[in-house]
Amino acid sequence: MTSPTDSDVTLIGLGLMGKALAGALLGAGHRTTVWNRTAAKAEELVAQGALLADSADSAVTASPVIITCVSDYASLQQVLTPVADGLGGRVLVNLTSGDSAQAQEMARWTEKQGGIYLDGAIMAVPPTIGTAAAVILLSGPESAFTTHQSTFDALGTTAYLGEDHGLSALYDVAGLSMMWGVLNAWLHGVALLGTAGVNASTYTPFAAQIAQETVGWLAGYADQVDSATYPPDDATLDTHAGGMTHLIEESERLGVNAEMPRLFKALVDRAIAAGQGGSSYPVLVEQFAQPRATSR
Amino acid sequence: MTSPTDSDVTLIGLGLMGKALAGALLGAGHRTTVWNRTAAKAEELVAQGALLADSADSAVTASPVIITCVSDYASLQQVLTPVADGLGGRVLVNLTSGDSAQAQEMARWTEKQGGIYLDGAIMAVPPTIGTAAAVILLSGPESAFTTHQSTFDALGTTAYLGEDHGLSALYDVAGLSMMWGVLNAWLHGVALLGTAGVNASTYTPFAAQIAQETVGWLAGYADQVDSATYPPDDATLDTHAGGMTHLIEESERLGVNAEMPRLFKALVDRAIAAGQGGSSYPVLVEQFAQPRATSR
Repeated sequence: MTSPTDSDVTLIGLGLMGKALAGALLGAGHRTTVWNRTAAKAEELVAQGALLADSADSAVTASPVIITCVSDYASLQQVLTPVADGLGGRVLVNLTSGDSAQAQEMARWTEKQGGIYLDGAIMAVPPTIGTAAAVILLSGPESAFTTHQSTFDALGTTAYLGEDHGLSALYDVAGLSMMWGVLNAWLHGVALLGTAGVNASTYTPFAAQIAQETVGWLAGYADQVDSATYPPDDATLDTHAGGMTHLIEESERLGVNAEMPRLFKALVDRAIAAGQGGSSYPVLVEQFAQPRATSR
Repeated sequence: MTSPTDSDVTLIGLGLMGKALAGALLGAGHRTTVWNRTAAKAEELVAQGALLADSADSAVTASPVIITCVSDYASLQQVLTPVADGLGGRVLVNLTSGDSAQAQEMARWTEKQGGIYLDGAIMAVPPTIGTAAAVILLSGPESAFTTHQSTFDALGTTAYLGEDHGLSALYDVAGLSMMWGVLNAWLHGVALLGTAGVNASTYTPFAAQIAQETVGWLAGYADQVDSATYPPDDATLDTHAGGMTHLIEESERLGVNAEMPRLFKALVDRAIAAGQGGSSYPVLVEQFAQPRATSR
């Protein structure tokens, strides 16, 4: 056995995703130590050259970088609490799904043990791990990220987001919101056109074009949000409200679900009630940035 | 005055959009007759070479193609009913905003007068009319579209959608739904990241990338909808539901509006209750294709 190096990695948690991560590390030539509560899950990886730790403690102390990918934060604490001493001076990279508060709490706990914490979110399915298509978001101390970036790059396309440990989880859920927003708007259109016998494949190129055009406006709209000035160069909220009424009425007339446009209209109506009918669309960020409508 | 030709056009309705349409026709060399209830609105166009009709009747009979762009269908009927006889053998291209039922009714009425009806929707703001950026959707008899396509092409990028006169209005509102879907999902993400001090311009390239990746899935998902088979090659509805719960909880914890993800989750929960938790996301089209949930 060669002596430990900076590129050695320990992988704790060998579910589908953990196995894919360990496989990618092995494929990139990293000396990879693995551990799982059920040791049988490591067999295939050991055949590929992984070192199987005989305890969580020896797993943690085997490498300068410990990547964790377990089912949730409660499981993570169960694994790490008994072996907390081993984290001193090491980098813990936690890819377990959770929210930004859990990430921040885990960072505080790890730092208390003398460890360095990076929180990550995997925006990919296991089969793409190790390819550029797998995006891994990371946040926490930048120096820890840059020191070990070549290790992380074995997993996919890594994006460093900033020092705030909660950023990975926030970008992750925001990205999911975008994904569902596109999918649901598309499904609503598919349902509308379906009432006229137009199949989804016929409608979809048009929907894709509209989505892409809209994406093209976002950079300019972001400047409006950041400067909190909303000149209606294209259309006012009042105009949008009129279009939404059309969409709601057409949906209802055709027996298509209108809950989504009704919610959109409710948000716009609140902004108009707040005197913003003459502003451009992104002024609506003020409605999204508060828990819910004022009494109405 | 030269004798009438097939490329002559009459434009009725000289609001901002109507004026832009007439200007584009004149710019493309069409002999263009204009009419508006308030004649003064035609002055600028007459200076550019437009012919001002002295009545709605002479406007209708001046050209083989009559394009109408007025405020709504009620106004359109007020203008056309007294001059209905003149529509015989002519092509009426109505670009007035309305829904698919209004378009279909107008088609029946026009055909009763012996005229040919095309319904259109303008997906553009007036300043872009006459450029490729202005998309004009048209539906109705294909022969009428192809005969006069060169005239329509003067207005922007024309897309012929099919014989059903309601298709222009349907594609129009479906496109708006896609636009608002993208914008609102983006604003939700902007609000989430804003709680961590990340400005909109920093977040937006990430959101744009996610949106574009999601758009890339639509063609495959459309095949699933058209074949009504939903193999969960990427993720099941159950998995999506778990992610939505994360998004809702994170939004609520940060004081960000969670109404949109709550609605998305409600739609998914109904599909899961219907036994579709193991299917891929587009199975949700069945929820969009019905007015609302079954009792719950």
